[in-house]
Amino acid sequence: VSSPAAELAAGVESGDRRALARAITLVESTRHDHRRDAVALLDALFPRTGKALRVGISGAPGVGKSTFIEALGLHLVRAGHRVAVLAVDPSSARSGGSILGDKTRMEELAREPDAFIRPSPSGGTLGGVARRTREVMLVCEASGFDVVLVETVGVGQSETEVDDMVDVFVLLVSPGGGDELQGIKRGVTELADVVAVTKADGELAGHAQQAAADYRHALHLLRSRHKGWTVPVLLASALKGDGVEATWDAVTSCRSNLEASGELAAMRGDQAVRWMWAEVTASLVERLDGDASVAARREALQHQVQTGQLSPSAAANELVQLFALKAD
Amino acid sequence: VSSPAAELAAGVESGDRRALARAITLVESTRHDHRRDAVALLDALFPRTGKALRVGISGAPGVGKSTFIEALGLHLVRAGHRVAVLAVDPSSARSGGSILGDKTRMEELAREPDAFIRPSPSGGTLGGVARRTREVMLVCEASGFDVVLVETVGVGQSETEVDDMVDVFVLLVSPGGGDELQGIKRGVTELADVVAVTKADGELAGHAQQAAADYRHALHLLRSRHKGWTVPVLLASALKGDGVEATWDAVTSCRSNLEASGELAAMRGDQAVRWMWAEVTASLVERLDGDASVAARREALQHQVQTGQLSPSAAANELVQLFALKAD
Repeated sequence: VSSPAAELAAGVESGDRRALARAITLVESTRHDHRRDAVALLDALFPRTGKALRVGISGAPGVGKSTFIEALGLHLVRAGHRVAVLAVDPSSARSGGSILGDKTRMEELAREPDAFIRPSPSGGTLGGVARRTREVMLVCEASGFDVVLVETVGVGQSETEVDDMVDVFVLLVSPGGGDELQGIKRGVTELADVVAVTKADGELAGHAQQAAADYRHALHLLRSRHKGWTVPVLLASALKGDGVEATWDAVTSCRSNLEASGELAAMRGDQAVRWMWAEVTASLVERLDGDASVAARREALQHQVQTGQLSPSAAANELVQLFALKAD
Repeated sequence: VSSPAAELAAGVESGDRRALARAITLVESTRHDHRRDAVALLDALFPRTGKALRVGISGAPGVGKSTFIEALGLHLVRAGHRVAVLAVDPSSARSGGSILGDKTRMEELAREPDAFIRPSPSGGTLGGVARRTREVMLVCEASGFDVVLVETVGVGQSETEVDDMVDVFVLLVSPGGGDELQGIKRGVTELADVVAVTKADGELAGHAQQAAADYRHALHLLRSRHKGWTVPVLLASALKGDGVEATWDAVTSCRSNLEASGELAAMRGDQAVRWMWAEVTASLVERLDGDASVAARREALQHQVQTGQLSPSAAANELVQLFALKAD
């Protein structure tokens, strides 16, 4: 039996670039009628997923993330890997813009046949900023990419969401020192498996060494989240090409460590369960949104809330009461 | 007719400090049976809410947010205001820690009878990191606080959520220059109504002036999100007490401008509608979570997803199908 989803899945699995692009467009679509096909596609691809090394890369704006990722991506394709670069950008939900949206970024990597660069989808955050990115990652894996780099920006929710879809998390920090160090002490350290101080060249080389020493000291006081793994702090210069390979070696060591201890399987299992719940949430809201009884009242309730006649919590309560969910 | 919610509401409205604390504890409770009382309380308080000037304050870790907020809070209580300081910290969901969690922060402000400082609640992010903070804000307003300062950290989702509950958004930036400037160009600028360069004293004074000039130039190239409002870039030294009053003057000017143009009412209306939808989402998930048919299958499905036998999207689909929502 052949279905459009099965045909598209076969195209993706054969490594066809156009099938990959069509599959990603389908998965990212916000159209309700596309969603059923997307779920069928993902189910068809599921047995072929999970083989890639999944790496999250984060750092504050200006730290040199795209330069670093391009250098890393080029290193990897030259070593025979197929590399997908995805982005999760919470600001794109608001602005409609996106990181990686600028076509001139990672120009050299983008020309490599074994690299695939996908900007952050703009539009709604229903179900979290990383909802579709997780699915795009699976599509890329089924298409034969053995390394997936997921780029994100900032400190907070997007890091947590990205951390929930990767094996190893790399934090890029600038040679700035003081301010940055406070950042790493608060929350972000918990996520970092590998820290690289960027721009460790030219007049910043000395600062970078000092920053690395500071981070090592700070991290020394904290416990790594994986037993038997000490978070390394490396120096990197994308400009000179230094430290990129060493960072990758640290990533693969961390992942080997996780595999050997059995933590990787447990971690991926937990990630899948959280992903399931995130999908449940997004799906429920989509259904309520399409419910006829809700549709009949929503405009009136919205108007009352908008004009301050009714509290948001009271209106929310009424909408949920109206919504009768039946199996379809 | 008197109910526990009505009694508690009366206590909050009288300005009673213990009633305020009890009301906030109720609103922040994750217990299902507390939620009904919390909604009743919020509905009772609703007519007394909305009178405060709501201000979001953000900035990267290390920028000096708590020092600045304490100086601002002290300035405001001395000018006769009653000031509530709330925090939204996405990392607290993961770590269980929280900004403002350190009791030694804002020590002087905390001793003021007209100030109230509330740390970010730790625990789940169901419905977004700011879900309960919005409700705590309403409780504070009903209790007579006429200024609510909502502190957040980082770049991204938490800023967007905080922006969705305040009138005016203040961005604090460090005298660092380059790196910061890239941050402001990407997304955060859209949120900032007032920018203050912190630590404009001592040996950093020159850097701060240069940074302010850079930000002014960058902002000049962008359009303010409110018509008739040019985003001011100010210099502040919490240490010397400089610039705090000027920052507050800019905040009140911005808010007056929004009131005069009618934008404030429209903005608050839109915020309330988005809040209603956020509540709908959180409430649906809570109900599914308590559904008997779901309960009978969830462990088995979770196990299959955990062990990689079933895709998260397929399992999510089954759970949603099982969930039959009836009005209660």
